Amino acid sequence: MENLISNISRPKHDYIDSSVFHKLESYNPKHSQAEKIPDQDPYTLNGQKLRLNFIRSQLNLDLDFLSGEKVFTNNESLKGNIENYIGMSQIPTGIIGPLVINGSLAQGPFYVPLATTEGALLASYNRGAKACRESSPITVVTLQEGVQRTPTFKFKNVIELGKFVSWVLDHTETFSALTRETSNYAILNDIGINIEGNILILRFEFTSGDASGQNMVTICSDRICQYILENCPIKPVFWTIEGNFSGDKKISPLNTRVRGKKVTAEIVLKKEVVKSVLKTTPALLHEQWRICVSGAKKAGVVGGGMHPSNGLAALFIACGQDVACTGEASVAVTRMEITEENDIYFAITMSNMIVGTVGGGTSFPTQRECLELLGCYGAGKSGKFAEIAIAVCLAGELSILAAMSSGQFTAAHQTLGR
Amino acid sequence: MENLISNISRPKHDYIDSSVFHKLESYNPKHSQAEKIPDQDPYTLNGQKLRLNFIRSQLNLDLDFLSGEKVFTNNESLKGNIENYIGMSQIPTGIIGPLVINGSLAQGPFYVPLATTEGALLASYNRGAKACRESSPITVVTLQEGVQRTPTFKFKNVIELGKFVSWVLDHTETFSALTRETSNYAILNDIGINIEGNILILRFEFTSGDASGQNMVTICSDRICQYILENCPIKPVFWTIEGNFSGDKKISPLNTRVRGKKVTAEIVLKKEVVKSVLKTTPALLHEQWRICVSGAKKAGVVGGGMHPSNGLAALFIACGQDVACTGEASVAVTRMEITEENDIYFAITMSNMIVGTVGGGTSFPTQRECLELLGCYGAGKSGKFAEIAIAVCLAGELSILAAMSSGQFTAAHQTLGR
Amino acid sequence: MENLISNISRPKHDYIDSSVFHKLESYNPKHSQAEKIPDQDPYTLNGQKLRLNFIRSQLNLDLDFLSGEKVFTNNESLKGNIENYIGMSQIPTGIIGPLVINGSLAQGPFYVPLATTEGALLASYNRGAKACRESSPITVVTLQEGVQRTPTFKFKNVIELGKFVSWVLDHTETFSALTRETSNYAILNDIGINIEGNILILRFEFTSGDASGQNMVTICSDRICQYILENCPIKPVFWTIEGNFSGDKKISPLNTRVRGKKVTAEIVLKKEVVKSVLKTTPALLHEQWRICVSGAKKAGVVGGGMHPSNGLAALFIACGQDVACTGEASVAVTRMEITEENDIYFAITMSNMIVGTVGGGTSFPTQRECLELLGCYGAGKSGKFAEIAIAVCLAGELSILAAMSSGQFTAAHQTLGR
Amino acid sequence: MENLISNISRPKHDYIDSSVFHKLESYNPKHSQAEKIPDQDPYTLNGQKLRLNFIRSQLNLDLDFLSGEKVFTNNESLKGNIENYIGMSQIPTGIIGPLVINGSLAQGPFYVPLATTEGALLASYNRGAKACRESSPITVVTLQEGVQRTPTFKFKNVIELGKFVSWVLDHTETFSALTRETSNYAILNDIGINIEGNILILRFEFTSGDASGQNMVTICSDRICQYILENCPIKPVFWTIEGNFSGDKKISPLNTRVRGKKVTAEIVLKKEVVKSVLKTTPALLHEQWRICVSGAKKAGVVGGGMHPSNGLAALFIACGQDVACTGEASVAVTRMEITEENDIYFAITMSNMIVGTVGGGTSFPTQRECLELLGCYGAGKSGKFAEIAIAVCLAGELSILAAMSSGQFTAAHQTLGR
Repeated sequence: MENLISNISRPKHDYIDSSVFHKLESYNPKHSQAEKIPDQDPYTLNGQKLRLNFIRSQLNLDLDFLSGEKVFTNNESLKGNIENYIGMSQIPTGIIGPLVINGSLAQGPFYVPLATTEGALLASYNRGAKACRESSPITVVTLQEGVQRTPTFKFKNVIELGKFVSWVLDHTETFSALTRETSNYAILNDIGINIEGNILILRFEFTSGDASGQNMVTICSDRICQYILENCPIKPVFWTIEGNFSGDKKISPLNTRVRGKKVTAEIVLKKEVVKSVLKTTPALLHEQWRICVSGAKKAGVVGGGMHPSNGLAALFIACGQDVACTGEASVAVTRMEITEENDIYFAITMSNMIVGTVGGGTSFPTQRECLELLGCYGAGKSGKFAEIAIAVCLAGELSILAAMSSGQFTAAHQTLGR
Repeated sequence: MENLISNISRPKHDYIDSSVFHKLESYNPKHSQAEKIPDQDPYTLNGQKLRLNFIRSQLNLDLDFLSGEKVFTNNESLKGNIENYIGMSQIPTGIIGPLVINGSLAQGPFYVPLATTEGALLASYNRGAKACRESSPITVVTLQEGVQRTPTFKFKNVIELGKFVSWVLDHTETFSALTRETSNYAILNDIGINIEGNILILRFEFTSGDASGQNMVTICSDRICQYILENCPIKPVFWTIEGNFSGDKKISPLNTRVRGKKVTAEIVLKKEVVKSVLKTTPALLHEQWRICVSGAKKAGVVGGGMHPSNGLAALFIACGQDVACTGEASVAVTRMEITEENDIYFAITMSNMIVGTVGGGTSFPTQRECLELLGCYGAGKSGKFAEIAIAVCLAGELSILAAMSSGQFTAAHQTLGR
Repeated sequence: MENLISNISRPKHDYIDSSVFHKLESYNPKHSQAEKIPDQDPYTLNGQKLRLNFIRSQLNLDLDFLSGEKVFTNNESLKGNIENYIGMSQIPTGIIGPLVINGSLAQGPFYVPLATTEGALLASYNRGAKACRESSPITVVTLQEGVQRTPTFKFKNVIELGKFVSWVLDHTETFSALTRETSNYAILNDIGINIEGNILILRFEFTSGDASGQNMVTICSDRICQYILENCPIKPVFWTIEGNFSGDKKISPLNTRVRGKKVTAEIVLKKEVVKSVLKTTPALLHEQWRICVSGAKKAGVVGGGMHPSNGLAALFIACGQDVACTGEASVAVTRMEITEENDIYFAITMSNMIVGTVGGGTSFPTQRECLELLGCYGAGKSGKFAEIAIAVCLAGELSILAAMSSGQFTAAHQTLGR
Repeated sequence: MENLISNISRPKHDYIDSSVFHKLESYNPKHSQAEKIPDQDPYTLNGQKLRLNFIRSQLNLDLDFLSGEKVFTNNESLKGNIENYIGMSQIPTGIIGPLVINGSLAQGPFYVPLATTEGALLASYNRGAKACRESSPITVVTLQEGVQRTPTFKFKNVIELGKFVSWVLDHTETFSALTRETSNYAILNDIGINIEGNILILRFEFTSGDASGQNMVTICSDRICQYILENCPIKPVFWTIEGNFSGDKKISPLNTRVRGKKVTAEIVLKKEVVKSVLKTTPALLHEQWRICVSGAKKAGVVGGGMHPSNGLAALFIACGQDVACTGEASVAVTRMEITEENDIYFAITMSNMIVGTVGGGTSFPTQRECLELLGCYGAGKSGKFAEIAIAVCLAGELSILAAMSSGQFTAAHQTLGR
């Protein structure tokens, strides 16, 4: 499969480009300048306007659709996004931050829009963002990317299958060329071969530019499969474009593979901040984390995080992402340690951050406004968006663990929830 | 733990009340009367109005917020649902159906609202609903319900832990009484005991009425734990209200437990309908399902469904559910067989349908309108809503499997997606 | 299912009988008297005799078959254990210990026989036993027991299934009586109900006395099922004695259920012993454990232990257990912490310790001798054997983690392995 | 990592060499000549001698140690395999077959030794072998091989880690050379990079010739790590030779990776044989398989087989394999279909067949005799042994499924078990 090598945009394992080290080491945040969101008048029109004006002036944005000043009437734009349209569901949306990130793609303070009806969610994530901000920027690194489609073929027997595989492996260069003809963005990086009796699963590994890419890779894979079926002398007795091996919208216990972007984030939280902002101690916080990781494993659940899906679902709704991917995207490995200085080291790693900043729902009015809030609208921004997303999750994990470690969790939900 | 028995509203295993059999067997759907949604002018204001007028006349509803005729200004109502509010995210919403259900709680034809920006999603689910409708009602049965909280306690050693457990088991009657004092809806049904070295996880099993219940059970569990901590002579060295053993917003490989409602649905799809509506054959459809269940297992993914999260995320956004639960809720066991008559038997079972029709986001304007579309707004409706939700997933699974089995999948996404 | 309650020998959750606390707290080991195994002349006939004589004098046993002085000729005794017999495979067997245990059923110093051909295995487990012995007895508690059989029934549809379940739940008292008639040892403790579409899985929960019990529960379940099939007016379209839901000889990610015995063990290892015996430090040992638990989770493997299967396979071969159960039995949750005194707290919990001291291979000559070495031959000893087995695993985990933490692991395998 | 490519003995995905097709297609078994094992006098010395004489004359072997005619006295040979030796555990051993295999490495009829004390086990596997033999040879193909070691390194932060990875990737050629210097058999095929916060797991992928290889790859990995630690300017704050990411002696839900050999086997079982030998029908057999695969998935167990661990544990004990690997080795994907001719297609795929024919316990007297029975003693035979092992599992799965499908299972265990 040497002919595939020229198309590899990234190695198939985790990797950090050496240019990233300098960028991360030279970041000099002036986040003292990043102003705090006005939180007075939480449940009045006046408070809403205060916050809108604050963010408009900070970022020079209109936000006319989010604010309700403009109403959607551009029904033509619905084509490709929905059928049997009757109107717009409206989801309450707020902002948290600034979240200060030192990432390989995202650097700076960010005000993050979250759409939810779960009370206490924004308050909790906002507190986490504050605790991080007062300690240090959140370091984030993108490690790998990829989107898969897994066409599956069935044969008379495993011998026929073997001959088919030989033919396929002799034509990978053609498949790369067909991919380039079919899409300006998709790149075919690898073809995995998985054999079980007389069934063959091909695992096409693509990158998809700044789209989340599920449709793009379907179309490219179909083109390749049609070519194979027409030209290969060995004919399968059945084939399908997808054998449910790609992990699309499903959850797997792995973090060794990638779906979308694989990103990792870490921070050292100062012990003073653990006390002043998170109202707990490093020892209690660490004990809470330790028990919760162990509890998840005992329960057989996938992913050891507490509630990354809370932050991700709210961010995905606001920003026009495919919300049906929340389950897979929220699988997270977290790790906490007490440092020699009695500070808290915390890391979170997410392998399935499948997001896009073009296509999908990104161009609808409020979705576009929310992406613009983050400087993430359009081409060249999907990696930045993924890095912001994991930073949000990191902040949320720290806040909920702190609340549970010190008995504030129930109280917060009694006050802010219903 | 005999004292708990009086509080058990349902047994802890799957169960079908005998009154249900008669209800299911006597259902006589006049779904010929259920009219088809007008689908002309898909991407114009006119088409939108046609569909709005159709559904308004069918169901005698206003839908003024969904339609954009009224704008949300009731900021006071945001209390308990969001902080740092700046406005409303707007998600395109359409309807599918009628979906004809013969359920233990939901019976009749239903027009189902789905909010999404993923092209082809509604078209596909709508086609599945049609194939079912033209074959027979979808049978749905609720099997079990429950919401958990898992407080966790750590002791000096396992002997101390053992003494603490003995005390706890002697006071379960008190815990039931405390639950009744704390909530009008929560019922404590069981307490699971899980010991690992010096760590004890108590698994409180509640039912929560028509709320999804996560907050309610937190508050009740906290009350019980405070009582234990004050009164038990054995003191833990650490405790927390949640040891991450409850499965809240996490995915586990099980369908033996329940979180929310456990529901099962089945249908026999006529071979003529497989051909006329689904454009495939029973043999191809069955082969596709078989390969996809096998593929999921090979990939190590949890749940063997194709895309229940697509339908659930869209339904949850429209209807004010906790969208962060989409991952756990969409874990599904599916099963297809070819009958002796060459029809298709298809069943789907979902154990984590955690939904509510009171509290959460259910009372916001568009969310309430969407619940009213289903006759599911307010008290006494959460079971009905769960049964509709699984019927939606059943329809969606059949449609995508049919599309993939006959090569229509890619074409549909090229035409309707982006 | 109240009629089942009278047959419950243990609650279905973890439980420690209060009589155990006094037994554990009053244990006063005189393990200074427990003598060390002579380890000179490791690979000569003379060394073998030294060890045989030592253990013979310590325990007043013959060990004539293990030693090779007597040869098996009792072919009649093979009935019920093997077909097509041609002779005896011979597996090298050694002893470790004394392993000092303070258990709810096993108390005292034990010399443990292990059969293996993997060099360094006994040396490593023996070192772990020494480190424990020089710190304190290993505390072990049995938490739960049970063996399952899961007959499965398929019906025309879910309504028929529901009626069948109602009938079954009305006859549980009869099933208990049938169990008592069929076996002197089996007790039916519970019947789980699991419904998926038109398929019903009954999960019969038994205890099986001192036999591992897989055959016993098969025969009892078959008797019950035959009764149901003859008497229930609702007839399934297919049924089978086992639907592969019992976990028999399979591995699952859970420790909430039990198969055989569920046991937990803990120890505090003194920092001086960590240094003198294990040649590492508490900090390095803890770091190694922490990384290894995290690595297992990242790899998606079930169970976070390092190598419990090494010790268990060797113990099971020596002691006539069902070696095919090694996979399920070796699933372990381990946990390590550094105490305030800078000692090591270590706990291990195993839910599937499926062992027997009657039946199976326990009466063959060398197997009986090995069980007698442990005082575990015959009725009333299976719980004691399970507690010794987990203590062996605890010792082995500590030793391998220590070796890896300080770079001795490779050296040990270069010296003692091949 | 181009410099690694020259060392790749096999591609990292499944692969069937084209030379295999001809070998498989031209196999012309004269298995009518393969004689049936005499099964009279099952539990007498005379019957044992009949079978010993039969197999001695068929294969021209002595079997003096298995038969008990010679006794082990060569204690010097124990070095490298056991410490604290006291004698030999003796495990009853029988033979099944002939098992007729058409494999890429194993071809012909085989008499397979199995060591167990579980009654009915050999009878069941023997029946499965007969059913296969009377239908057609079992086709077996080896797809992939590899053994892993996963050294793990921790750094001050993820930036330091990134610099370390860059250095490592620049020195892979050196690592290949170090491997060649350290072992005559090990080949380093790939290095996987897995990053999580400040922790790096390197996944060294080796092949290990005809040894199972766990020790060999430990020694090679240690050599490489020592080189890295001495020469790389970036120093980790902790490192270990194994981060528990290699899957060694653990079970994972995957069949996409390999540990040892990945092998697949298939057969078409004639409907007449299903009836005459297996005493069931294709429809019942298929229903049983379908329910059992579904049951395993519902229970959350890893692997959908029924009891591969029964056959593998018995084969591993007899043939000097590492019995502690039985759990991982027995993870199997099985698949059954009814063909158009109403015959049964059955396939089994096993990814973790970690076996060896040199080193380990393979040279002890009875172990060597058992390997010689299979023509698998010594260099160049490990692949052949893996192919026989999966064929044994295939036969055992068919037999147990048949027994369960027709109600014979309980009866067999009542007659042959205890």
